[in-house]
Amino acid sequence: MEREFVQWLMSRVPASPSLRQGIGDDAAVLDFGDSRQLVVTTDLLADGVHFDASSTAWTRIGHKALAVNLSDLAAMAARPLAAFVSILLPNDHALEIAQRLVLGMQPLATRFQTTIAGGDTNCWHGKLVINVTAIGTSLAEGVLKRSTGGPGDIVLVTGSLGGSILGKHLDFVPRVDEAIKLVQRHNVTTGMDTTDGIVLDLNRMATASGCGAVLRLSDIPIADSAVTRSAESGRIPLEHALYDGEDFELLVAVPPEVARTILADEELGFPIAAVGELVIDQGMWQISVDGCRRPLDIRGYVHGELTE
Amino acid sequence: MEREFVQWLMSRVPASPSLRQGIGDDAAVLDFGDSRQLVVTTDLLADGVHFDASSTAWTRIGHKALAVNLSDLAAMAARPLAAFVSILLPNDHALEIAQRLVLGMQPLATRFQTTIAGGDTNCWHGKLVINVTAIGTSLAEGVLKRSTGGPGDIVLVTGSLGGSILGKHLDFVPRVDEAIKLVQRHNVTTGMDTTDGIVLDLNRMATASGCGAVLRLSDIPIADSAVTRSAESGRIPLEHALYDGEDFELLVAVPPEVARTILADEELGFPIAAVGELVIDQGMWQISVDGCRRPLDIRGYVHGELTE
Repeated sequence: MEREFVQWLMSRVPASPSLRQGIGDDAAVLDFGDSRQLVVTTDLLADGVHFDASSTAWTRIGHKALAVNLSDLAAMAARPLAAFVSILLPNDHALEIAQRLVLGMQPLATRFQTTIAGGDTNCWHGKLVINVTAIGTSLAEGVLKRSTGGPGDIVLVTGSLGGSILGKHLDFVPRVDEAIKLVQRHNVTTGMDTTDGIVLDLNRMATASGCGAVLRLSDIPIADSAVTRSAESGRIPLEHALYDGEDFELLVAVPPEVARTILADEELGFPIAAVGELVIDQGMWQISVDGCRRPLDIRGYVHGELTE
Repeated sequence: MEREFVQWLMSRVPASPSLRQGIGDDAAVLDFGDSRQLVVTTDLLADGVHFDASSTAWTRIGHKALAVNLSDLAAMAARPLAAFVSILLPNDHALEIAQRLVLGMQPLATRFQTTIAGGDTNCWHGKLVINVTAIGTSLAEGVLKRSTGGPGDIVLVTGSLGGSILGKHLDFVPRVDEAIKLVQRHNVTTGMDTTDGIVLDLNRMATASGCGAVLRLSDIPIADSAVTRSAESGRIPLEHALYDGEDFELLVAVPPEVARTILADEELGFPIAAVGELVIDQGMWQISVDGCRRPLDIRGYVHGELTE
């Protein structure tokens, strides 16, 4: 539904001189007076869709609501400035829930110098809904885009993938600092965050860049939680690493010489691995351990099918 | 609940050098690079709280969701720039509803040059929730504030008041142009929009300005819909004009000589009336037709008690 709606919306929203990047990337980019640009993103989370309030502390839900938005700013390598928080609260214990949500946000807000500058609070007979809009400023180097990659670019991903549902989807720290470092130290221009599984997300980047992508399966960094999840699900850990959602890692594409300097950069201070490359042939491809290149199933995580 | 939460929040959110005006006014004001400031507001509307989807066209709901936010920008005399729309849709007919909501927003967005620059769409088993964040830019003259009034200032209000529930609360046009005119032609500095009834809202302005306020009851502009409503409710039209919510008019306070030039300005192009003044004595006061000054009940409209 969302994809169809977004395409309909993009065909209807008129061009605006101040809108540099609108619907379709991780965040919008607006010109604003001087040389810097404004980067804005908004995400709504609902109980039963994005989290399960019956088994999750309110503070962790608050953390997640802010973190997913800061991850969208990280996806653009923007520096967070402020957040606006709308909460629709269940009638019972509304004040206590609202306070706990904010308490869960504050450590993250402090860490990334994000002021909670406004919001809206309402109560109703339904379940908790929380919307955060985060505003950031672009670096002097510009924002990361999905559309600026090209065939031959090496695909890199931070951290490790899969099994996020076991806890990381609630507690992750958005890769804000990592994105800024990659841009400032290595002039990275093509990037996004991973929200729906690396296959689906990389396919989006490749499509936006007018090319395809190949993943070298043996190079995918598999998270410990993907292994744990595998024991429960009966699927191999690699499958969880490829197709589980909500890893909120950074996915970038850079020319081979830049990839080499990034991988050799001992002062980078966070894990990053080369996992494939962008190619001329449209679509998604895998290189298996046997060295053969075959099509790769394009699927991933869809919200609204929450399982723990 | 909201008031208590906001006070708790204000005590916890640390000061930020770029935040000129945070929680507590109609919108936040952020410094951003050059001389202009960023004005940001967010409002969440839920089915059964702010509108009744079973008896209201989706397009009218879409219009309202954007309009309430633009009214908050008008309350600051900010020029709208962009809007971000998050929608949580009922599973049934989700795409159609989303499209109709946007179709309802577009005439207003076009009229006020507000780009719908991004958003988030999700489906769930619950009722419709819609959150809009609107971003604007301050005028060179600065933003309207609630806190800059003083004793002796004349209180003016645009349009007419009461009975908004009969239709205006859905279809109103936010007073964006009127606010900009008042600032640019008459250097108005103190103002807000009326959302919860003129008594409650004026009390907020007076309190923020460190004074009280008196309303001259015979001068209150009573809307036709307040009279219609009166026939249904059995209360007098004036009561609806004083205490009904969601009029979304502009309330300003200006020195007497400015009030005179505003009221004499034949090129203003919209109705505006003097209804009272700010006074040294804290609290809210009424001057009845008999000329006596008595305390005025401080109450107004509370969301979540929607009745048609």
